[in-house]
Amino acid sequence: MEAGEGVSSATPTEEMNGAGNLMDFLDEPFPDVGTYEDFHTIDWLREKSRDTDRHRKITSKSKESIWELIKSLLDAWSGWVVMLLIGLLSGTLAGVIDLAVDWMTDLKEGVCLSAFWYSHEQCCWTSNETTFDDRDKCPQWQKWAELMTGHAEGAGAYVLNYFLYILWALLFSFLAVSLVRVFAPYACGSGIPEIKTILSGFIIRGYLGKWTLLIKTVTLVLAVSSGLSLGKEGPLVHVACCCGNLFCSLFSKYSKNEGKRREVLSAAAAAGVSVAFGAPIGGVLFSLEEVSYYFPLKTLWRSFFAALVAAFTLRSINPFGNSRLVLFYVEYHTPWYMAELVPFILLGVFGGLWGTLFIRANIAWCRRRKTTQLGKYPVLEVIAVTGITAVLAYPNPYTRRSTSELISELFNDCGALESSQLCDYINNPNMSRPVDDIPDRPAGPGVYNALWQLALALVFKIVITIFTFGMKIPSGLFIPSMAVGAIAGRIVGIAVEQMAYHHHDWIIFKNWCRPGADCVTPGLYAMVGAAACLGGVTRMTVSLVVIMFELTGGLEYIVPLMAAAVTSKWVADAFGKEGIYESHIQLNGYPYLDVRDEFTHRTLATDVMRPRRNDPPLAVLTQDSTTVEDVETLIKDTDYNGFPVVVSRESERLIGFVQRRDLTLAIKNARQKQDGVVSSSVVYFTEDAPQLPASNPQQLKLRRILNLSPFTVTDHTPMETVVDIFRKLGLRQCLVTRSGRLLGIITKKDVLRHMAQMMNQDPESIMFN
Amino acid sequence: MEAGEGVSSATPTEEMNGAGNLMDFLDEPFPDVGTYEDFHTIDWLREKSRDTDRHRKITSKSKESIWELIKSLLDAWSGWVVMLLIGLLSGTLAGVIDLAVDWMTDLKEGVCLSAFWYSHEQCCWTSNETTFDDRDKCPQWQKWAELMTGHAEGAGAYVLNYFLYILWALLFSFLAVSLVRVFAPYACGSGIPEIKTILSGFIIRGYLGKWTLLIKTVTLVLAVSSGLSLGKEGPLVHVACCCGNLFCSLFSKYSKNEGKRREVLSAAAAAGVSVAFGAPIGGVLFSLEEVSYYFPLKTLWRSFFAALVAAFTLRSINPFGNSRLVLFYVEYHTPWYMAELVPFILLGVFGGLWGTLFIRANIAWCRRRKTTQLGKYPVLEVIAVTGITAVLAYPNPYTRRSTSELISELFNDCGALESSQLCDYINNPNMSRPVDDIPDRPAGPGVYNALWQLALALVFKIVITIFTFGMKIPSGLFIPSMAVGAIAGRIVGIAVEQMAYHHHDWIIFKNWCRPGADCVTPGLYAMVGAAACLGGVTRMTVSLVVIMFELTGGLEYIVPLMAAAVTSKWVADAFGKEGIYESHIQLNGYPYLDVRDEFTHRTLATDVMRPRRNDPPLAVLTQDSTTVEDVETLIKDTDYNGFPVVVSRESERLIGFVQRRDLTLAIKNARQKQDGVVSSSVVYFTEDAPQLPASNPQQLKLRRILNLSPFTVTDHTPMETVVDIFRKLGLRQCLVTRSGRLLGIITKKDVLRHMAQMMNQDPESIMFN
Repeated sequence: MEAGEGVSSATPTEEMNGAGNLMDFLDEPFPDVGTYEDFHTIDWLREKSRDTDRHRKITSKSKESIWELIKSLLDAWSGWVVMLLIGLLSGTLAGVIDLAVDWMTDLKEGVCLSAFWYSHEQCCWTSNETTFDDRDKCPQWQKWAELMTGHAEGAGAYVLNYFLYILWALLFSFLAVSLVRVFAPYACGSGIPEIKTILSGFIIRGYLGKWTLLIKTVTLVLAVSSGLSLGKEGPLVHVACCCGNLFCSLFSKYSKNEGKRREVLSAAAAAGVSVAFGAPIGGVLFSLEEVSYYFPLKTLWRSFFAALVAAFTLRSINPFGNSRLVLFYVEYHTPWYMAELVPFILLGVFGGLWGTLFIRANIAWCRRRKTTQLGKYPVLEVIAVTGITAVLAYPNPYTRRSTSELISELFNDCGALESSQLCDYINNPNMSRPVDDIPDRPAGPGVYNALWQLALALVFKIVITIFTFGMKIPSGLFIPSMAVGAIAGRIVGIAVEQMAYHHHDWIIFKNWCRPGADCVTPGLYAMVGAAACLGGVTRMTVSLVVIMFELTGGLEYIVPLMAAAVTSKWVADAFGKEGIYESHIQLNGYPYLDVRDEFTHRTLATDVMRPRRNDPPLAVLTQDSTTVEDVETLIKDTDYNGFPVVVSRESERLIGFVQRRDLTLAIKNARQKQDGVVSSSVVYFTEDAPQLPASNPQQLKLRRILNLSPFTVTDHTPMETVVDIFRKLGLRQCLVTRSGRLLGIITKKDVLRHMAQMMNQDPESIMFN
Repeated sequence: MEAGEGVSSATPTEEMNGAGNLMDFLDEPFPDVGTYEDFHTIDWLREKSRDTDRHRKITSKSKESIWELIKSLLDAWSGWVVMLLIGLLSGTLAGVIDLAVDWMTDLKEGVCLSAFWYSHEQCCWTSNETTFDDRDKCPQWQKWAELMTGHAEGAGAYVLNYFLYILWALLFSFLAVSLVRVFAPYACGSGIPEIKTILSGFIIRGYLGKWTLLIKTVTLVLAVSSGLSLGKEGPLVHVACCCGNLFCSLFSKYSKNEGKRREVLSAAAAAGVSVAFGAPIGGVLFSLEEVSYYFPLKTLWRSFFAALVAAFTLRSINPFGNSRLVLFYVEYHTPWYMAELVPFILLGVFGGLWGTLFIRANIAWCRRRKTTQLGKYPVLEVIAVTGITAVLAYPNPYTRRSTSELISELFNDCGALESSQLCDYINNPNMSRPVDDIPDRPAGPGVYNALWQLALALVFKIVITIFTFGMKIPSGLFIPSMAVGAIAGRIVGIAVEQMAYHHHDWIIFKNWCRPGADCVTPGLYAMVGAAACLGGVTRMTVSLVVIMFELTGGLEYIVPLMAAAVTSKWVADAFGKEGIYESHIQLNGYPYLDVRDEFTHRTLATDVMRPRRNDPPLAVLTQDSTTVEDVETLIKDTDYNGFPVVVSRESERLIGFVQRRDLTLAIKNARQKQDGVVSSSVVYFTEDAPQLPASNPQQLKLRRILNLSPFTVTDHTPMETVVDIFRKLGLRQCLVTRSGRLLGIITKKDVLRHMAQMMNQDPESIMFN
């Protein structure tokens, strides 16, 4: 069998070639054929097949000349170039955002006299006081009250600082929400639900555009600096995807193919997480596990490249000033003990409960925002929440500072030189041990004080985050979730530590916690708690543990992290299967077919297909007896995305499927350019139109826009198989036949609707998967 | 629409229910229906649908009583239990193998007098001489010559030791090959090609059986100890998969469903790599990237769990005596410089060339073994290769020791206390620097000596590995490939180091290699070389880099590793797209549809389907006019795996597909048990058989074994889409229709044959993907 037999191919553009038309099969017959409308779903199979055509053409041309060979090589390398560019740009943007956030967060409290563009930390770098406690007192850095009135202490200075803190916060958040409102409404939120939907094949024009990129970057800095309970991690993924989309437009390979574009976007998402945490492997796994839909192995490798480039770009900018790659670098010195798994699992349970509570409360609030008057005043809402946050946050030192600083302190183990309140233990003068080795000690007043403040901070964070996520500003929830978990974890950690110290004769502590021994690391509890809470909210699993592993750099602590992550996922799943992103996707009604949902019901294709029993019959075209007018009426009267073409209405034997958009364009084009095409012209989808007498109106041949390989299933196919096919092949619709006769059609939306129906009917059946 | 509408479902077992039969739909109507024959391909969709049925039944039963609820919970948890057991057993086996290999490798040279079951290292642990050089001289450890003759030195002792070394090697390898031959022929080779094939849905009975597990474990120890150029990493994956298969048999959920079983096996493969290198994340990615076919996210999470349990079990056995998880633990102290990327990329090129050479030569040799007399004397072949290996390996200290020890030494940086030949640099007495900080120094005579020996070892390893891989003993090629790369890398590393030392005024060295500076780490070059060679042979990408990352534990060196891995893959791919595993799969003719091959040709389903133009028509059954005799003749005359069922031969409208195996069993069963079924009985596939006069022979209703949802494509479907569908849905066959009429059939083998044809025809088109 020769390859030449395959000339008459099935894709619309190719078919032209097969029909003897000499036009290049890559040139579109008329503009926009094969593109998609906004808020529509792409056809993965068609995109893939178009890319293969393109590739084939380049390959065959490459044999003609050296120049074409070079072009084909460039084309093969363009994927890597795009990855490199994404890595560089998203790394740079992340670095700039980090620096700007640092500076502006500190600006709320004071200014650096020697150079106003320095953050508090940078300002005091040159200073001699290096301990944490004296950090506030470096002379170049002045609080606003000191600068204005000359008094650094006293009630007046406190009130003035308090007032200015609130004022700056309000200013930042007002700017953020205004910019979003005016220039780029898509820049709000975390962006991950929408990116998941886009990657699954939905078109949202402008969501990843240049304006969104610019405004999201700027407003993200403002939103984070304003002190609201939100993080930059989710939005960074959105920013990286915007970068990806931007660079796609440089290469027609990616800009003209929605499927290929999504491969790039998957890799960009990995780069986004990579720079958010400094965890390239975790980023790739996050993209694989959480965001992506179609993730071939080639993309895995490229994502890894993009994630690494981004991480190294960020490191060379060095925003954290420690030449570390990671956001929270921690190093623990003591191993953990089996008995500690009990508090770790309890933290997992807490994480799961928090996840459930957060998702339910946040979705309820967002639904309220959508349906009531509240949604009409987004600026006012942001101002109000910022005001409340600032007023409540300032008095508590743990909420006043930025959330990532807070997490960083909670994760850290108390070293000998640590001067934070959390490390105020009573030293036992009897012991003379090396400086590094800090045994368990009784807690001092500072620790008790810190515990109270942390407990208040916990309640505050839990409540305010529910109202913050979903407002019309960029807002991620990795950091707030981790903060909740880290606070809870640290509190539990200190409790266990003190219990072990005071009751070291208890049977459980006997073997590993003798007095003077170093046995409980409260910082590890904070980390485990953070993982549990993040897991409860997002339902990440492997990527979560790997991100945490990359932060600590040691496999030692994987078991505690895993225990907490597994527990929190199980607890949260018991109350509802969806994570926050899926819940927001549902809330917004995006057509997203989750890869993870298992469909376990015994329905058949015939139960789901349209037309239903009492509906009018399916709107079909016949291959050689429909007139232009009939087609136009059909297009006007229905809003289906496409129409099956059958041999005749009697036999109902399917020959193909034609897209509504292509049909509209083709007829419009023919009416304009082709003489003699009138309303009574017959539309032919057959290979050869019959020779008619000249008196008949000119016929219109449309086989070239006909998809000759539509996807079919029989009416007896179980819906679980249909769901599987839709998911794995990324279909838009599927035709239903019985013994070769066309019966109906199932679209992606029908599948989603049916799944939602079945879920509500029988929620227990999906609990333990 | 009610769920109740879905009673008449499509799977054979369910259909019985729908037909009003009161039998439980989970009970098989007669034994073996729905199972597969040896060397056949499973139907993934059917397996999945059977599992859903099972799940559905358990869920609905769980509401009936507490006991059933507990059973359903146990069922839901059984997956985790299996993972735990796999982790524990494969970790334990890996630990036992490591200990046994250590002991037996040393047994070739001598014995521990204080306790003969101690390896050389364990024997000398209590000794005071701790440096590497004095390690040989601990008094409890005696070489054979010393023990027998009392003389440790001299020509006589050397010859005696040499002789005994060869003797032990021959004994070990003879035992290994004999055990494999007699008890478990499937225990030979690395097992990864077969596991890939099995995971893609092929049945090879006994390949993962108990005997294979036992014999592979024992012979692996013998084969590695014999000093042959092979490693234990690949076989460990096979061993772990055998464990997985063993534990599957504990739960009917896994033992009765070939699809679910493969999910467990994927996780077991991850556990295998995890214990082979001590790299759990790398193991999971290896399973995902290299071995697995169907890898849902649920499996990802469970694989991770199994890999971690296995790694920690291994660590608690602690075979390497350093309480490290990893096989080669390294720590470098100097960063790498941009200019070093040039040698790294050169190492990548070397790795790619080595990969190509190895694959071509090894496949040519294996083909020769298969087709000539050579294949008839496997024991002799093993003995001969072992003899040659032992004779050539003993004189060279770098080949005499075990390959993993060699790699470990090559990876290590020269510390101040290192006494190996490779670290014999000339000290500069003028410098007084801290002990840790070793600046670049001129190479001493030991280094030059080592270089010669390494060069000889390189040639030896390259040649002997080609002949070793594929013999009838367990043999992995991770370690030999890494050894080749590590030797080449170390040589290049020392060369660069010396060049930088002697020519530090050259422009490229000027900025980073002043005299007295510490700038080149030859150990890092060895590591990069190992990654490049392993990548060239296996074409692993992400998993390779992640495994190497887990060995070093730092992100610092990912860029060099990645540069080498990418280069080696590109270079190797330019000469041939297949890695060693795919090549062996092809050599053995397994029906494996590679996920990574992109099919880019313009052929259509009609070009591939059978019957071909001049063939006899397709063998079909009709729904109501075939007699039992006709069916039996058809089964006898053809060897197809199944037959399409049509309405009538005239209309050729498809109604379903019936498996040959089910048909044979059903007719046999009916003939035995059902009165009145004779050769002239008509077989009915319709819903209701007509009421016939009593004179007619009893009819045979077979709708319950009919698959009412066979997969169909149109004749115009491009083959790239067909290939995609086969891959993603795991089909065995697909029917081809045109306008609802059955035209032909495409089986997985047809697809594979067509792909192979097209590849050979036009190899360039797949070069740059």
